Amino acid sequence: MTDHTPAQPSGQLPGAAAVTEAEVLAAHEGGKLSVGLRGELETVRDLSLVYTPGVAQVSRLIADRPAAAREYTWASRSVAVISDGTAVLGLGDIGPKASLPVMEGKSALFKRFAGLDSFPIVLDTKDPDEIVAVVRAIAPSFGAVNLEDISAPRCFEIEQRLIDELTIPVMHDDQHGTAVVVLAALMNAATVVDRPMAGLRVVVVGAGAAGVACTRILLAAGVKHVVMVDSRGVLHPSRADLTPIKTEMAAVTNPDGITGGLAEAMQGADVFLGLSGGRIDPNLIGTMNADPIIFALANPTPEVDPAAAHRWASVVATGRSDYPNQINNVLAFPGIFLGALDVGATRITEAMKVAAAGAICAAVPEPTADRIVPDPFEPELAQRVARAVGLAAQVDGVAGPAPEDATD
Amino acid sequence: MTDHTPAQPSGQLPGAAAVTEAEVLAAHEGGKLSVGLRGELETVRDLSLVYTPGVAQVSRLIADRPAAAREYTWASRSVAVISDGTAVLGLGDIGPKASLPVMEGKSALFKRFAGLDSFPIVLDTKDPDEIVAVVRAIAPSFGAVNLEDISAPRCFEIEQRLIDELTIPVMHDDQHGTAVVVLAALMNAATVVDRPMAGLRVVVVGAGAAGVACTRILLAAGVKHVVMVDSRGVLHPSRADLTPIKTEMAAVTNPDGITGGLAEAMQGADVFLGLSGGRIDPNLIGTMNADPIIFALANPTPEVDPAAAHRWASVVATGRSDYPNQINNVLAFPGIFLGALDVGATRITEAMKVAAAGAICAAVPEPTADRIVPDPFEPELAQRVARAVGLAAQVDGVAGPAPEDATD
Repeated sequence: MTDHTPAQPSGQLPGAAAVTEAEVLAAHEGGKLSVGLRGELETVRDLSLVYTPGVAQVSRLIADRPAAAREYTWASRSVAVISDGTAVLGLGDIGPKASLPVMEGKSALFKRFAGLDSFPIVLDTKDPDEIVAVVRAIAPSFGAVNLEDISAPRCFEIEQRLIDELTIPVMHDDQHGTAVVVLAALMNAATVVDRPMAGLRVVVVGAGAAGVACTRILLAAGVKHVVMVDSRGVLHPSRADLTPIKTEMAAVTNPDGITGGLAEAMQGADVFLGLSGGRIDPNLIGTMNADPIIFALANPTPEVDPAAAHRWASVVATGRSDYPNQINNVLAFPGIFLGALDVGATRITEAMKVAAAGAICAAVPEPTADRIVPDPFEPELAQRVARAVGLAAQVDGVAGPAPEDATD
Repeated sequence: MTDHTPAQPSGQLPGAAAVTEAEVLAAHEGGKLSVGLRGELETVRDLSLVYTPGVAQVSRLIADRPAAAREYTWASRSVAVISDGTAVLGLGDIGPKASLPVMEGKSALFKRFAGLDSFPIVLDTKDPDEIVAVVRAIAPSFGAVNLEDISAPRCFEIEQRLIDELTIPVMHDDQHGTAVVVLAALMNAATVVDRPMAGLRVVVVGAGAAGVACTRILLAAGVKHVVMVDSRGVLHPSRADLTPIKTEMAAVTNPDGITGGLAEAMQGADVFLGLSGGRIDPNLIGTMNADPIIFALANPTPEVDPAAAHRWASVVATGRSDYPNQINNVLAFPGIFLGALDVGATRITEAMKVAAAGAICAAVPEPTADRIVPDPFEPELAQRVARAVGLAAQVDGVAGPAPEDATD
């Protein structure tokens, strides 16, 4: 273990200094989270208030009136970050224990950006039935579930079954957090190149968790021409090798019936959205429409070098913090969960995600080619996103009763 | 809901003022716990350290060398407080959601007294197979499991199976926390009445979780004459109505073969240990040996009124904070778990529990009739208990490798 191995190569943004392995390890010493007490616990009397005998009154109250749990426990503002460790960052299936630092980090972000209490639960099983059963069993412990780094296609089934079976918000962030930020960024990018969203021709490369969710949210937001490409080519109903989810996506995308590979898909497209991790030939960008928009989101190595992309493209975004326009889920998930919990939502609907994207987009009032998304540390960003999400939940009829009704 | 309902009747200790329902509810507003960040998270650079891309290095490290999780995650010092809400305080089976305030309180005590990070997991299932499967699945998320308020006899099977299947410490506190403090208190009470432990004749009333565990630890500590009594009378091998656990206990207790009811058991006994919740006739105490020791631990109403007991008894203890000699689990569980986690123990053995009792006992160097246990806020009590427990773990061969070995 050496002290000076860079964790990321030097980037294009000044000030985005590489972090060393020694610094990373120091930041993780003893873990990143701590559970604290919200009140005093210094006397026998305090003990009587927060534990026995006093606590029995609160338990009795909740036993009689379950909605009181929202007021007198932390469940109404806590989020479980749940992973089986099968699709962790770019590392793949590294198991629950090795995924724990990522989940602790996620919980840390929930606190820092949304003020929500969050703790990681990593699972020693990959079986969808078992995962659903476990999360269902522990669900009374918290207010919402952030599924994280669960591999496709299992993630689709697990998320859908939990949404159906639980009455608290459940969201697989790798799908929807990414999709929300991509939509927000694309709306601002469309403004920069002065083209309407509905008319954009979008090529989505990668048909995994993020590719499917991005496609769905783009369709929900009114984009008409989306073509998905996986490692074997364009998704088209005539392909015999499609999984159920890809069959579903082939049916709702590709209105022009394009067949073939990436080259066929790219020709005449306005937007390249890379979510695959595979490198592409930069010259393909030259076959797109004029002023194309390039989102090369693979980490740590974008599908196309940003400098190369800029030879043709007006707007380039990546997943990296050392280039402009980082497509970073942290812009979305804290506010989405905060908004859902604030209104006691029972689920997170497509309209709530689109509303989140709208608020993130609006946080950059005058977008430019180098600034299509807000800074993660933009003050009150999560709170602004939360208000939009809460409103959408009410419109969609998935918000809980108002606090007065819930607790009286 | 009125403001001045006392949560406990006025007690005998001056200064132990009753807490009102309004005060209790105020102390529970929004829950009692909060998850915080241990380090800074104020810049994009901090994000790169605690989340992507930096965190990938830590995940990779743990994937290659699982023992590193002990150093770079919070799992080595976190405790899950797990309950199915079936035997909560004196309230019985009130369900997971209503048990959450108790479990939050327990987690708060872990932090306050042992500095351990702890979070509650309440379960929406009562099935032992499912409970074992769920805890096994989520076990990589934390360093130890405190089972809480799970009803007998399910608690015995669930605890034993988890101890057998997991490689982290598991303890059902209602059994063993109580037993450890009872043993500590009884050792000091024996000193006060100047009688050797081994010769004490002990009547244990109640054959549930606490009764079984107290009996076991008394036997482990060398007490020879223990007689258990349940609602149908003295446990004796000739009884046809015994559950498996009671059959087991009948085989190792009652060496004189006493039959009958409480009256027969009490005659000539030295110690009454009430763990049943049922009231007893105080005059039975008059049939015990001279200077008897009375532990009437039912909450909130002791099996016998302490004032009545004092007509005969030299030492009286209860479970209440408003009388002297409160038998309170908080004296034991923080130090037991801290000691087990400090040495990376894979389980909590009987010797570790006896060692904990010894340290709690030793924290009262000069016991008197009104002081057989230390104050819960005695400085460094949990740390002293932890050292004794860690030493016992090493002697028993259940301690993990020393930190150097584990992480290099």
